[in-house]
This record gives sequence, structure tokens and C-alpha cells, in this order.
Amino acid sequence: MKGFQKLTFTYEALQTWFDALQVKRCRDITIPLSDAYNQVLAEDVIAQEDLPRFDRSAVDGYAVRADDTKGASQTKPLLFRFTESEELVDTAHREAKQVWTGNPIPKGANAVIMLENTKKVDSKIEVWTQAAPHDNVMRRGEDLKKGEVAVPVGTRLKPYHLALLSAVGNSEVKVVEKPKIAILATGNELAKTGEERGEKQIWESNRVMIAGMCCELDAEPLDLGIAKDNVDEIAEAIMLGLKIADAVITTGGTSVGGLDLVPEAVNKVGKPGILVHGIAMRPAMPTALAVLEGKPVMVLSGNPVAAIAGFEVFARPLICKLLGMPREESRPVVKAVMAKKIATALGKKNFVRVRVIQKNDELIAEPISAKGSGNLTTMTRANGFVIVAENREGLTEGEKVTVHLFGEVETVKP
Amino acid sequence: MKGFQKLTFTYEALQTWFDALQVKRCRDITIPLSDAYNQVLAEDVIAQEDLPRFDRSAVDGYAVRADDTKGASQTKPLLFRFTESEELVDTAHREAKQVWTGNPIPKGANAVIMLENTKKVDSKIEVWTQAAPHDNVMRRGEDLKKGEVAVPVGTRLKPYHLALLSAVGNSEVKVVEKPKIAILATGNELAKTGEERGEKQIWESNRVMIAGMCCELDAEPLDLGIAKDNVDEIAEAIMLGLKIADAVITTGGTSVGGLDLVPEAVNKVGKPGILVHGIAMRPAMPTALAVLEGKPVMVLSGNPVAAIAGFEVFARPLICKLLGMPREESRPVVKAVMAKKIATALGKKNFVRVRVIQKNDELIAEPISAKGSGNLTTMTRANGFVIVAENREGLTEGEKVTVHLFGEVETVKP
Repeated sequence: MKGFQKLTFTYEALQTWFDALQVKRCRDITIPLSDAYNQVLAEDVIAQEDLPRFDRSAVDGYAVRADDTKGASQTKPLLFRFTESEELVDTAHREAKQVWTGNPIPKGANAVIMLENTKKVDSKIEVWTQAAPHDNVMRRGEDLKKGEVAVPVGTRLKPYHLALLSAVGNSEVKVVEKPKIAILATGNELAKTGEERGEKQIWESNRVMIAGMCCELDAEPLDLGIAKDNVDEIAEAIMLGLKIADAVITTGGTSVGGLDLVPEAVNKVGKPGILVHGIAMRPAMPTALAVLEGKPVMVLSGNPVAAIAGFEVFARPLICKLLGMPREESRPVVKAVMAKKIATALGKKNFVRVRVIQKNDELIAEPISAKGSGNLTTMTRANGFVIVAENREGLTEGEKVTVHLFGEVETVKP
Repeated sequence: MKGFQKLTFTYEALQTWFDALQVKRCRDITIPLSDAYNQVLAEDVIAQEDLPRFDRSAVDGYAVRADDTKGASQTKPLLFRFTESEELVDTAHREAKQVWTGNPIPKGANAVIMLENTKKVDSKIEVWTQAAPHDNVMRRGEDLKKGEVAVPVGTRLKPYHLALLSAVGNSEVKVVEKPKIAILATGNELAKTGEERGEKQIWESNRVMIAGMCCELDAEPLDLGIAKDNVDEIAEAIMLGLKIADAVITTGGTSVGGLDLVPEAVNKVGKPGILVHGIAMRPAMPTALAVLEGKPVMVLSGNPVAAIAGFEVFARPLICKLLGMPREESRPVVKAVMAKKIATALGKKNFVRVRVIQKNDELIAEPISAKGSGNLTTMTRANGFVIVAENREGLTEGEKVTVHLFGEVETVKP
């Protein structure tokens, strides 16, 4: 029997690998805030002052004492007199100071009447509406108090995080440098697009795919090219990868056949080498996990869908750790109803490609059938994975499942 | 009354603007496939040959005639003899040719027995399992047939699209150039982070946010800086934007007050200028849409959450059109249950910030309350929008709503 002697459950494999690795976060780097979109924050950013730092007008209008507006209405307007002062001083009379959105509220005032609820009459101003204290006022510290964490360490910076960091005065930000992932494809059957191709060769397609998956997580892919089915050539490429990158990913050459040379090459490079080989998942069973020079090496299947599944289970949490994120970043998930039953392999974690569509306000998951994991169109036709647990033998028709989306959900007219 | 005389519904505003614009797709550019992640395809890419282009082995093993394996089992193995030939010729005897994953299937063979279901015995090979025709064979054209569209024009290229394009032989790809979006902030109250700040000034934060939202859609933001509340200065910046970019976005200076000078500046630059000003939405009512020199100009509110809502409704579909996408790219959406009731403004499209959490296998949307649209932490605490239609006055507790996600959904232990 030349199959794997023993398959390791995905979570055990990950645990073994991470225990051996002691993954350290990549180094910090300070960059302009304007370059920081989608990068990961390397430290808590604390508000150095209240935000806003003074009571501000939320609208264009007139700052007043709320009490003075009591009883004002469109039919019974109240007359106020203008002041240019920084403070409403004349408490005997109704005073109003013109303010624009964002202007500080003058001392003594505690509300703003919107311009459209007022009318200039000669040198006075009619107020048509009654205000409660703090109406149309953004109060000091209302958004953030001095000393509060504006954005916590490990946050993937989205547009509104950038805005908040800017609003508390940061022109630069300390982020985690993008992890560098070196990618090697292996196999005599592979030819580079744009070059010559032999009769029995096919165009190599995994490198650009794995690189794209790295970009999705904002890691930086480095290309190690294609190695022939030769232990020394593979080992040399892996050594180069270890020199230039934080992690190495290979594809192909990892089943149990005679030409499956990548695990051999990994072990030739150094210790501890391969830690796990043969995972209880489908596809991607022949995935292997290794550590060399303290760095992670992932040996993925050459079949593209298997390589994707292997990446999802092992590379995604690894990259999140290298980025210092507090937990694995998940894809968007939705609940959907299985359109038909499917069989899966008991004892393995099954990745089932599905196409989720919205129909009659219901989400339906249609399994994309394919014999093997070699067909790329099963990925371009699908928009998500259902992950079927090891203790299941399939999914039933009508079953509610969790779909991990990697593409858009289309609405289909009934 | 200084309010807007008339508010325009969002879809009417968009229609008016697009009709006047006749949006053209940005120009094409040919780039290496390895740089094409997340870019938008500018033409249908057709498979120039079948994929795979020959019957391939999906596994490591032995290619055989399926008929020859009839009756084989672990207890009753059948003996095959090796051949090195490209063709199984000796139909009188059982022949097997060793193949590795991806190898062409020799002529005459129609199935592959996996290595683990065989055993070498001297110069022969024991086969332990029976095969049906095409078992473990990826058939020619099974993934794509010659002449089929591999990836259609207008597709945002995800990792598996890149793989498919590579698999059909493309080392380069024609994509749509990233739309350039020039961004201008306006307002005397705004100071640049990293520079000096006056007593009454606040740190400007919209430019980096709008730039981030452009990056989310893979458009290229260009910074026009901050203009003072001065018609000429604003007009000059807009003219520069029109020269260097495909579209201009401004923030601030667009309510109905005396210092709301951006619409005035836009109309000073040229014709037709402002087409719509005052949208039936909340926040972002003071948004204005304009056309200058045939290019789109968006005048967004200075309040950050209003600017975000305005961007979602107008800039997102515009950028998708500039990219030549067949329809607007949507954020991931989920159904969730409102945790409590909220009131919204009748006659306006309301953008309600919510935090969606998963609890007991149910998605719950908690409204993030805020008086105004000036508070950025309402965005960093939220992870999605509920868009409440114009004919509603609120949402009820327990109502099932559609949430447009802009952040991750957290699972909360009950």
C-alpha cells in the first residue's frame, strides 16, 4: 500500500506546524497614512486629544442658548440679535452667532438652529424652531475621548480607519510589513506561458493563482519560477525562497508516486523539514507542511482546486499570523440552502464548490460538480465553498449550509 | 426658506448624471498576467485550444484499458505487464503504462489505476481494483472547449481567473486602466495632519478615506489637497483635477449656507456644471452631481459618514462603469435580524449603520446610534449598512433586513 499511512486532521496539522514555527509577526514599518489602505496596524493608536476637540456645529446656522428658543415655531418665530463675539454675553437678550459646519460653538451657546429654520429680518434673525440643548452640536469628545484607542493593533485598515487615524492627527502610521511569500511550481509537464511548449506539456497556471491569493491578503508574492522534477533543482529553489521570503509555497510533486519529489527535496534542505504529510481533507490530501530555517514551507498539490483548498486551510491563517492579526481573517459567509444532495468523504474535511444565487429572496447553493480537482472552470463558475465536517458523509437537499464566499452572489429572476 | 427647493431621488439623480455623461470605459492596457490581480478584463478571452488539450492522468498510477480490469479486487488481483510505448498495442494481453499526474494517457488506454491500488511483483504489476472508462482521467476539453470564452470582458480578475487565463496560454492580458479619481477637500476649518493647525481648525480626514474607497474598487486616487472656502481656489483645484483625472470628487462646502461654495465654483468652471443638488437620502442630502468637460464631478458632504454614503450611491456605480463592468459591483450582503427598532426619514433613502454579529447561529444587526454623520467611530464600530427605502419610516425590532457589509462579522458567544 503506497497511500499515506496516516492522514492528519486539518486542525492537528495546523497546530503541529504552528507549534514548531512559533510564528513571529513581520517587522514594523512607518508609512504615510495615504499609502496604508488595507495594511495591518502594528500598534494601538491612541487619541492624543478629544475628538472633536471642541464643541462643533454639525450644520450651517446660528448658535444660540437653547433656553432662548422656547416656544419658537414657524407661526410664532422669535427674534434674535446677531453677535460677532466668541461668547454670548448678553443673557438679558436673545443672541445668535452665525456658524458654519465644523465651527466651534461660542461660549454660552449650547445649540445650533439650522439656517433653513431661520430668516434674516433687517438686522435681526427670526428663529422658527425650538432647540433642545446640544441640538446640531457635535460635542467635544463625543467621537473619541483623549486616551481612548482610536484603532487597535492588528486592524486591517479600511477607509474609515484611515479617516479616524487622520482625524486624530496622524499623517503617518506604523504598519506590519507585507509578508513575502516565495512561490515555486514544480513538474516536468509544466511550460511557462509566453515560451516554447513541448508536445506533452501544459501551461503552468498555479503560480499566478497563488500569487493572487497572497495579494488578496495583502502579502507580497515572489516568483521562484518552475522547477523540473529533480530533487536538487527543487531544493535549490526552496533555499533561494528561504533567503528572500518569509515563507515558501510549492505546488505539485507531492502525492505518493515516484516522481513526487518535493517532500524529499524539503528534507534535503534541512531540519526539521516535513512535519505533516497527508491531510484528512478533500481535495488537497497530499498537502505537506514543513519548517526550514525557522520559516514555514507549504507543499501544495499541483491540482489547482486542491492548491486553493490547501492555501485556505494553511496559508491564510499563516499570513494572518505573520501580519499580527488577532485571529484569522475570514471570507464573507452566508447561509444558503443546498439545491441538491451531494456525497462527501467521511473522515475528511471536504471543500465543496458551490454557486450561490439569490432567488425569491432566498439564497440557494448549487454544487458545482466535477470529478477531480483539476478543473479551473469549477472555480470560475462557483462563488463559494461549503466546508463539510469530517463526521459527515454528504449534504442533503434543502439543508441549510454556511458558504464561504469568494465571488459575488447574483440575483436570478425566478 | 433656504433649504433645497426640491430633493431628487437617488435613482433619478444617477440617471440624470449618467445620461449627461455618457460614461466611456477607460482605455485598455496590456499588462503581464502576474500584475493583473483584481484588475478588470477589457476583452473576452477565448480558449485557443481544448483545456486540457489531451486526455491527462489525474493521478499517479498506471494507464490501462478499463475492460482489462474487470473483476480485479484486493483479494483477486489481476496481473498486467508493463509497456513503455505511447500506445497500448497488445490487445491480447493486459498492458499497463506508468503515468504521473498530468501525463498524457497513451493511445488505447482509457483509465488510470492509482498507484496505491497496485503492487509491483517482479516484472509485472498487480492491479487490485476495477476501473470504469475515464476513471482518473481528465478528458480533453473537459475544463474548456476550444473557442469557448475562458473569462468574459468586464470580469474583475480573481486568483482563479488568473489561473484559467494562464492555463489557456496567456502570459499577458488586456485590462482596463485604473480610473484616476482626483480628490479635493474644502473648508477653512481643515488642517493637514503633519502641519500647523489653528485654534479653530480640525485635522482633515476625508481625502484619505475617499482615496481608500477608490482603492477598494481598484481605482487610482490623486490628491488635490485642501482648498480654502474661496470660489476661485476651489475652481482652480477642480480644473486641475479635470486635467489629470477621469473624475473629480470634492468634500465639504455643499450645504445651503453662505460659505457653501463648491457648487458655485463648479458652475464657474464650465457647462453644464451642476445637474443635481440635494438628494433624497440621509445622510448625504447636500450631495451634488455635475459634469464638466464631459467628465463626472461629485460634490460630497464634508461630514465623513455622509461622504461615504454619497460615494456608495454615486461614485461606486460610476467607477464600475469607468472600468467597463457589466453592472455595479456589490458589497457582500447578508440577511440579519434588527436588534431594535429605529426611526428613519420618510421620503429619503436612509443609510443606517449597523453592527452585525453572529449569535446562536443567527445574524443580528445592532443599529449604531449617532446623532449626526460627523462621527467616524460609528463607522469603525459598524460593519455594514442597512439601506431603508424612501417609503419607510423606520425598521421594526425583529425585522429581517439586508445588510451591505463593509467589515467582518464577528461571532459572539451567547
